[in-house]
Amino acid sequence: MDSQKCRGVCVPGFKAAGLKDGKYGVMLIVADRLCAAAGVFTGNSVKAGPVLVSGKLVPGVLRAVVANSGNANCCVDSQVKDARSMASYAAKVLGVESSSVGVCSTGIIGKPIDLKKLFSLVDRVAPSLSSSSAASLAAAKAIMTTDTVPKQAHAEYGGIQVGGIVKGAGMIAPNMATMLAFITTNADFPPIILQRCLKESVEKSFNMIAVDGDMSTNDTVLLLSNRTKKGTTIDLQKALDEVTTSLAKQIARDGEGATKFIEVNVTGAKNKDAAKKAAHAIIRSPLVKTALYGENPNWGRILASAGAATKINYIQTTVAFEGGGKKAFVFRRGRSLPLESAHQILKNHDIIVHFDIGAGKEEAKAWTCDLSPQYVKINAEYS
Amino acid sequence: MDSQKCRGVCVPGFKAAGLKDGKYGVMLIVADRLCAAAGVFTGNSVKAGPVLVSGKLVPGVLRAVVANSGNANCCVDSQVKDARSMASYAAKVLGVESSSVGVCSTGIIGKPIDLKKLFSLVDRVAPSLSSSSAASLAAAKAIMTTDTVPKQAHAEYGGIQVGGIVKGAGMIAPNMATMLAFITTNADFPPIILQRCLKESVEKSFNMIAVDGDMSTNDTVLLLSNRTKKGTTIDLQKALDEVTTSLAKQIARDGEGATKFIEVNVTGAKNKDAAKKAAHAIIRSPLVKTALYGENPNWGRILASAGAATKINYIQTTVAFEGGGKKAFVFRRGRSLPLESAHQILKNHDIIVHFDIGAGKEEAKAWTCDLSPQYVKINAEYS
Repeated sequence: MDSQKCRGVCVPGFKAAGLKDGKYGVMLIVADRLCAAAGVFTGNSVKAGPVLVSGKLVPGVLRAVVANSGNANCCVDSQVKDARSMASYAAKVLGVESSSVGVCSTGIIGKPIDLKKLFSLVDRVAPSLSSSSAASLAAAKAIMTTDTVPKQAHAEYGGIQVGGIVKGAGMIAPNMATMLAFITTNADFPPIILQRCLKESVEKSFNMIAVDGDMSTNDTVLLLSNRTKKGTTIDLQKALDEVTTSLAKQIARDGEGATKFIEVNVTGAKNKDAAKKAAHAIIRSPLVKTALYGENPNWGRILASAGAATKINYIQTTVAFEGGGKKAFVFRRGRSLPLESAHQILKNHDIIVHFDIGAGKEEAKAWTCDLSPQYVKINAEYS
Repeated sequence: MDSQKCRGVCVPGFKAAGLKDGKYGVMLIVADRLCAAAGVFTGNSVKAGPVLVSGKLVPGVLRAVVANSGNANCCVDSQVKDARSMASYAAKVLGVESSSVGVCSTGIIGKPIDLKKLFSLVDRVAPSLSSSSAASLAAAKAIMTTDTVPKQAHAEYGGIQVGGIVKGAGMIAPNMATMLAFITTNADFPPIILQRCLKESVEKSFNMIAVDGDMSTNDTVLLLSNRTKKGTTIDLQKALDEVTTSLAKQIARDGEGATKFIEVNVTGAKNKDAAKKAAHAIIRSPLVKTALYGENPNWGRILASAGAATKINYIQTTVAFEGGGKKAFVFRRGRSLPLESAHQILKNHDIIVHFDIGAGKEEAKAWTCDLSPQYVKINAEYS
């Protein structure tokens, strides 16, 4: 679905709004009743104020979320106090309990957040709260930083709706570009079940565009359910997986300076851990990513990066590239093959790297983008 | 000491030679007697033929080393057979036992090595074997790939001499640019002691310019001793540490596309492991490295990268930049400070990043270079 026309977080019973003014942006999501809520937060030991505040609220109940771009509210004395003020102010404007508002921030670290500016943005954005898809899009846009496009997704299984928006870009590990994801649903489950399903989804999606631990100080995924639809956890999981995977891929596609979108498909691993380790190693290898930028089917770098992370017997491995509806094997069970077709395939924007370890039946998928000179320029100047 | 004038591996009793012809280069080191030998090899599970062959010889005895650039002799059926042929041919030309020749390769992966070319280079280079410093320099030059300068070092403590040459460049982790280091000494110790001292040295030097496990298929460090000088292991360790640290820094300084040399000095860690983890996380962070390329004193990225790898309480931490004889604190125990002086300091080529965790007394140093758009260009095109 075209992300711009997607209903995003505006599943029935939820309203959203967003407004950007200069460097600062503010987004609101509010439910028409108290929601069961779950959350997954950064594993970084340096945590921003809003992570510390929101982290205490979930799993639990939430009515609304307020988030801002422009300042991370991190590594400053006032970070927890300011995050609480932000939640309280939004609660007052929305007419809800202060303790039912999740709070998130993204932007520069180490400078106090401009609460006056923020409060005025909350005042200005609140009247535009709406359940339209345009409102979800405005919310997605308000939290963008180095993102070049807003990112939304929606899925429905057995009447269970899941909608989400995300901000995040910058696909070279350690990826310190903050990721904020807000997900809404009607699935009638208590917080503890939502938490379990959310965690499982995050594992297969957001954690497969970066490596666990390569996390920013502010990374947050929040899930709110207004519990208006009975259903199975199987359908909830399906819908959640579809939404989080779509959002994760949209982040990888929007990598800073990216010229190509890359899916890494590891198969034939002895166990799940080996499959994930190999996939992570390949997506984080600057040498693989620069080779793909150069449209160079360098299977040696793929083997070498995977081999540094997990046990690989090169004689058993197979590497292929896929793109534009074609697939070319460049290395099959220890033998290198002609590269002409692969060179052609790598001219496509969307590329799949197939890496078969040849040692078992487990699989893992991960997503990234190529590494271009433009990435360096963006990150040398951003501050 | 000027690396070009250094005696390098030509400590008394050793001869060296090197010759480059087109893409291929060959280097020889030969001792006037059988040597005690030690070695440290890549931890990558994909291992090149020469690593498999040389790995079986040490700790043990060696008389000579043959190494080539231009082809890694890796991920091809014939890799072990060809590595053995290379050692045998060099042995024949040098008039030594085949099993006393260590063998190493660096270059492209996945293409059979051109033995004919290699043998002819061995024939041509052998007559120039000499104990002069020019011979060591020629050896260092012959194994260069993306290196822009040859790298040598020498140290002496209590009559114990240690000399070395190294090739390697490319300082962004996972660093798959092969590192080959050859070290010679007169220290009279058996292989097992040499092995222990070499391992300790490598831990503090080569393993602090990349992260353990981020290793190429061919990485090799070989140490040969002709055992002509009695001494203490303390002096041997000092000399070895000085040589390996000098060589490691030369590699970091010669990073692909580097415009700056960066030392990361982590202090105040609770334990050694935390200090090393923080130092590794900082040197491998593309966001820190691009910020330094942009001469941007972004302490937030330093805290965030360290915090993703080990426990950091930002309130206890301090960050300073040093260069051109000046030092500027930008973050002191949780408080950000003015950045003007740091901006000036970052205009220098050689920069020290000081990061004090404020939690203990352990320290670690690591070295890297900045990440420039030129890095991407070099690695997009190299194949």
